[in-house]
Amino acid sequence: MITITNNTINAYIDEHKERFINELFELLRIPSVSADPKYKKDVLRTADIIKEKLINAGAENVEICPTAGYPIVYGEKIVDPKLPTVLVYGHYDVQPADPIELWHSGPFEPVIKDGKIYARGACDDKGQMYMHIKAFELMMRTNSLACNIKFMVEGEEEVGSDNLGTFVKQNKEKLKADVILISDTGIIANHIPSITVGLRGLSYIEVEVTSPNRDLHSGLYGGAVANPINILCEMIAKMKDSNNHITIPGFYDDVEILSDEDRTEMAKAPFDIEEYKKALDLSDIHGETGYTTNERTSIRPTLDVNGIWGGYTGEGAKTVIPSKAYAKISMRLVPHQNSAKITQIFKEYFERMAPKSVKVKVMPHHGGEPVVTPHNSIAYKAASKAMENTFGVKPIPVRSGGSIPIVAMFKTELGLDSVLMGFGLDSDAIHSPNEHYGVFNYLKGIETIPYFYKYFTELSK
Amino acid sequence: MITITNNTINAYIDEHKERFINELFELLRIPSVSADPKYKKDVLRTADIIKEKLINAGAENVEICPTAGYPIVYGEKIVDPKLPTVLVYGHYDVQPADPIELWHSGPFEPVIKDGKIYARGACDDKGQMYMHIKAFELMMRTNSLACNIKFMVEGEEEVGSDNLGTFVKQNKEKLKADVILISDTGIIANHIPSITVGLRGLSYIEVEVTSPNRDLHSGLYGGAVANPINILCEMIAKMKDSNNHITIPGFYDDVEILSDEDRTEMAKAPFDIEEYKKALDLSDIHGETGYTTNERTSIRPTLDVNGIWGGYTGEGAKTVIPSKAYAKISMRLVPHQNSAKITQIFKEYFERMAPKSVKVKVMPHHGGEPVVTPHNSIAYKAASKAMENTFGVKPIPVRSGGSIPIVAMFKTELGLDSVLMGFGLDSDAIHSPNEHYGVFNYLKGIETIPYFYKYFTELSK
Repeated sequence: MITITNNTINAYIDEHKERFINELFELLRIPSVSADPKYKKDVLRTADIIKEKLINAGAENVEICPTAGYPIVYGEKIVDPKLPTVLVYGHYDVQPADPIELWHSGPFEPVIKDGKIYARGACDDKGQMYMHIKAFELMMRTNSLACNIKFMVEGEEEVGSDNLGTFVKQNKEKLKADVILISDTGIIANHIPSITVGLRGLSYIEVEVTSPNRDLHSGLYGGAVANPINILCEMIAKMKDSNNHITIPGFYDDVEILSDEDRTEMAKAPFDIEEYKKALDLSDIHGETGYTTNERTSIRPTLDVNGIWGGYTGEGAKTVIPSKAYAKISMRLVPHQNSAKITQIFKEYFERMAPKSVKVKVMPHHGGEPVVTPHNSIAYKAASKAMENTFGVKPIPVRSGGSIPIVAMFKTELGLDSVLMGFGLDSDAIHSPNEHYGVFNYLKGIETIPYFYKYFTELSK
Repeated sequence: MITITNNTINAYIDEHKERFINELFELLRIPSVSADPKYKKDVLRTADIIKEKLINAGAENVEICPTAGYPIVYGEKIVDPKLPTVLVYGHYDVQPADPIELWHSGPFEPVIKDGKIYARGACDDKGQMYMHIKAFELMMRTNSLACNIKFMVEGEEEVGSDNLGTFVKQNKEKLKADVILISDTGIIANHIPSITVGLRGLSYIEVEVTSPNRDLHSGLYGGAVANPINILCEMIAKMKDSNNHITIPGFYDDVEILSDEDRTEMAKAPFDIEEYKKALDLSDIHGETGYTTNERTSIRPTLDVNGIWGGYTGEGAKTVIPSKAYAKISMRLVPHQNSAKITQIFKEYFERMAPKSVKVKVMPHHGGEPVVTPHNSIAYKAASKAMENTFGVKPIPVRSGGSIPIVAMFKTELGLDSVLMGFGLDSDAIHSPNEHYGVFNYLKGIETIPYFYKYFTELSK
């Protein structure tokens, strides 16, 4: 049986780490923003590069699989069909970079400052995805790949993975595996490793409120015509009560209620509220009455306005009552809530609460299901042992507030659990200006991943 | 005594109307947007052209008077110091043109369609202001100017006339007159002339709500950190109760209460609610309980959000909790309310209602006082007779919902009443895309103005 040693791994990383960083920089320089059609060529070019990198690392049957949207890059290395197979998932698309004026260096001009790689996608998910390709290369070059490996790298994660479901349904044989391995989450701190065992779901919606058929002068019409911005604000305000409970009827019906025991267990995770407030410059925390900050971001659903616009937003003053106002609203969901159902009850509520004086449109963007992954499985144990090996501390299982909707879909379509072994930090500013990823974390990921294969193969026997 | 006849006026207009329109087009082609610094050169160029046009029309002592902002163009024709003097006020700056994509033709490429001149400023106020220069030219060329005339044309009306007050204070002698004549308002319809005898005041404010010190990922932080957009919406919503009364303590304290008699008189003005709804494509009207639509836009104060922005407003979806959210909010004021006081109580209320979890900034933009002008004065009677002469119907005195803050300032500083003899229509879409001004209205203004001078001089004897 093939095994891998500390020495093999550390020596290879030491020798090649500069190249590992340079290759990631090459990826980060391409603005593969899937949300904005003007970057279409860049997104497609990124897929080409991933293909090339997989081939160079030693993958076989590498192909760019077309979808109705951006393609999925597939590659594999079958060592022995009798050995277990790990399916690695990642994404090569990134979030938009705006507000661009808040970046200290160009979002697509990666630089290292204070040991951190600054660029859009540095952590989410180019950095974390590319660790897997480099760890694979390491295992191939050192003849230490312990089991079979398959790669599936998509380009639409940041816009809802709309075409991944169809691809998975149509390629069940090709994607056959024993577990899915994903690095698109984080650890608590560099000295406190953790593994994500729960993710929130998502329902993302755009709304439009229309009042007069054209922009009006607020002097001549103000007071007599519904102002769509005021109305939109009133409708958004009504969606939460004074305890910050969401008022959509039925919203909490399916929410998983944790036992006091589970909540007590959760409360043991290290957390300093004063540090938290200081790091974000918050004068106070804010959220649902009756829950702690960690509970609010993990086991409780939310409703946040992610964007709002209407009327005159330029310099100076314009006394206008606009014809329309818009908002992008998303809800994070917890286990047993269903994205389609939540989207539907939001729509009904929003339409019903609109005063007769306005017209409203509710346009669902995308959704994803909440998920809890087992933390007594072989795969979880392999990840835990791998991290303990390289961090020197046993990782803590945690529930994350974020959403990777495809985890639930993989379970349904392929019957596979996922292991969410990520290496990012909450402070990496993913989806924000100045996103970054620690060089430490990038190399620690490349170091840890080979152990996962080793332990997973051993424990699978 | 100099007098003027129908024949003189009509013959001159007939001969020159094509040129009158072409000259206005020349003005409309310059984007003199005072709110946006990028148009600075254009605003200044417009002042130069106004100067040239005044000189060509026969004005004397024409000068471009510098201020701390955009200059004021002054010119005069003193026929005889013993005769009355009319001070004409107008403005050469215009509102911003956005949303530009809603214009059917370029906002600064004037065209005539269906008898209407389409361009930003066609009505407000280049078209209405230029009527006075052309009426003055007519009187000069036909030797029929009955009294003295002074012009004061400013370039900051659309941004609050910040420097006009200082100019007026410093030039009281130069501006000495018997009445101020302004065309920056409208008539009810082309067959129902009216004269504005009341204007609302204005308090215009920009607010900023800040929560975390950077944009956050809504998955990782959603639920635990105040979302500045949600908070801003909640704060705006709280500013009105379910009867659409404004909740700022003290807001209504000074509001002039009209007698039932006055309200009954007002209700006689022709108004068709179904026509109104149809013209604006409104499913219903919306406003303060207990008042009619006409009352809501004239004798009652308002609070409208003129612009709102925050978070991700591009295409697609971005799951962000932004650091900041903004709104531009204006309040229209009625007689006896004071703009500075209202701005102050708004600021106190907004700051007080902010939850501890956010920081707020309240930035006053500009304000103006409400005003009621007398409708039993010589000047009002002269305007009324002039309009009756050219429209064939006696004009109705009306209160307008708009604000021309300088009217109150003229009264305070110069001790002069203003006559608001405008020729626009509510449907002219001023401050909106596709602003226009009827060729009928433009020429009717040029035709009516000389009669004002005639009657004002006669009645002043």
